[in-house]
Amino acid sequence: MQIYHHFLCPFSKQIAILMSELDIAHIKIEHQFWKPNPEFDSLSMWGERPVMIVEDTVIVGTYPCFEYILAETDNKYLLSSDLITLTRIRQVANWFNKHFYEQVSAHIIHEKLVKIFSTREYIDTSIMRLAHKNLHEHMLKMSAIIDMQGYLAQDDLSYADLVAASHLAVIDYFGDINWSLYPKVKEWYCLIKSRPIFRSNLEGKITGIDPSKNYLKLDF
Amino acid sequence: MQIYHHFLCPFSKQIAILMSELDIAHIKIEHQFWKPNPEFDSLSMWGERPVMIVEDTVIVGTYPCFEYILAETDNKYLLSSDLITLTRIRQVANWFNKHFYEQVSAHIIHEKLVKIFSTREYIDTSIMRLAHKNLHEHMLKMSAIIDMQGYLAQDDLSYADLVAASHLAVIDYFGDINWSLYPKVKEWYCLIKSRPIFRSNLEGKITGIDPSKNYLKLDF
Repeated sequence: MQIYHHFLCPFSKQIAILMSELDIAHIKIEHQFWKPNPEFDSLSMWGERPVMIVEDTVIVGTYPCFEYILAETDNKYLLSSDLITLTRIRQVANWFNKHFYEQVSAHIIHEKLVKIFSTREYIDTSIMRLAHKNLHEHMLKMSAIIDMQGYLAQDDLSYADLVAASHLAVIDYFGDINWSLYPKVKEWYCLIKSRPIFRSNLEGKITGIDPSKNYLKLDF
Repeated sequence: MQIYHHFLCPFSKQIAILMSELDIAHIKIEHQFWKPNPEFDSLSMWGERPVMIVEDTVIVGTYPCFEYILAETDNKYLLSSDLITLTRIRQVANWFNKHFYEQVSAHIIHEKLVKIFSTREYIDTSIMRLAHKNLHEHMLKMSAIIDMQGYLAQDDLSYADLVAASHLAVIDYFGDINWSLYPKVKEWYCLIKSRPIFRSNLEGKITGIDPSKNYLKLDF
């Protein structure tokens, strides 16, 4: 299996981490998604990520990729054989990959990464303010859920937590999370971050943009 | 099972049609999604549709709803027991529910329905022009696929076709499709529209907005 991947792409990150955690062999092809890439564009209309190649089949998007992996593995670790729990995992994935992305990650990635390397425009502070306001609301909602059940979809770690943590990791690289406001989320994130597979997926550095101070720290 | 539903909502439409086709008992609760509805909002953050109620569980969004139904039924009609075909069905669902919606349906529904009943602003012709340009591109892509294999995800009808047809039916209500440009898509759509269950889901009328001339015609 091959996956087009960049450590600052929350979509390919969550699928690559899931495959590593489930011990599914895969090769990562580095994809700097802010650069024009005719090879990638020929596989993914509208530039949607991630793109996985399974033998002759191209699978595009977190939803089809996740469901493919789920169907192919007997390993229920991080997933669930209980349909209601699995439905909850899918809903949290949908929350982060759709709503959190549209309201938070997409803006921050565009303003702080794409603009610097691609459009070369200035950061729009009103968009950043909106993204931070939305981030705050999502973090409060996460705090409440984590406080209640320890993790996002059930009382134990699941793929849902990896999806959420993948988005947070990317925006944390840019230093946009004021962790002191969300101690419950911070505690949960530190637990996930200390997993060797998640940690190895944090590695990477973009020339010109240093990661925030606590990005790589396990305890901060 | 209960589903919040409106015949001009492409999301609840596709799930309601799927349940009818698979003979799954369900009750529709009319949901005029352009009106404030505290009961609905308490179930669905960000107003995402559809919302299904299964015993005590609330399931939000086409992706979790579809996967729940798929897991609960042994009936593989409209679905597939072949993983690669099922993956293709999911990708087409993702195409229409994400990209087609964002580029086409969302704009037309907002300009021609939400604005009239909710915000009371004028239709923005530049947005309508963009939606029509995007619609044209998607219709050409559909034409090519239908020409090649008869249907969108395989050489026979599947849930993927119902998803696509649900979006087209809503924008066809407003008369925004120039069918003469896309004979292959028109032929495919007429076949789907002539199915009794799809047809019964076309029924409905909004006071103040008449359906386009060919909206209810089986052959046009």
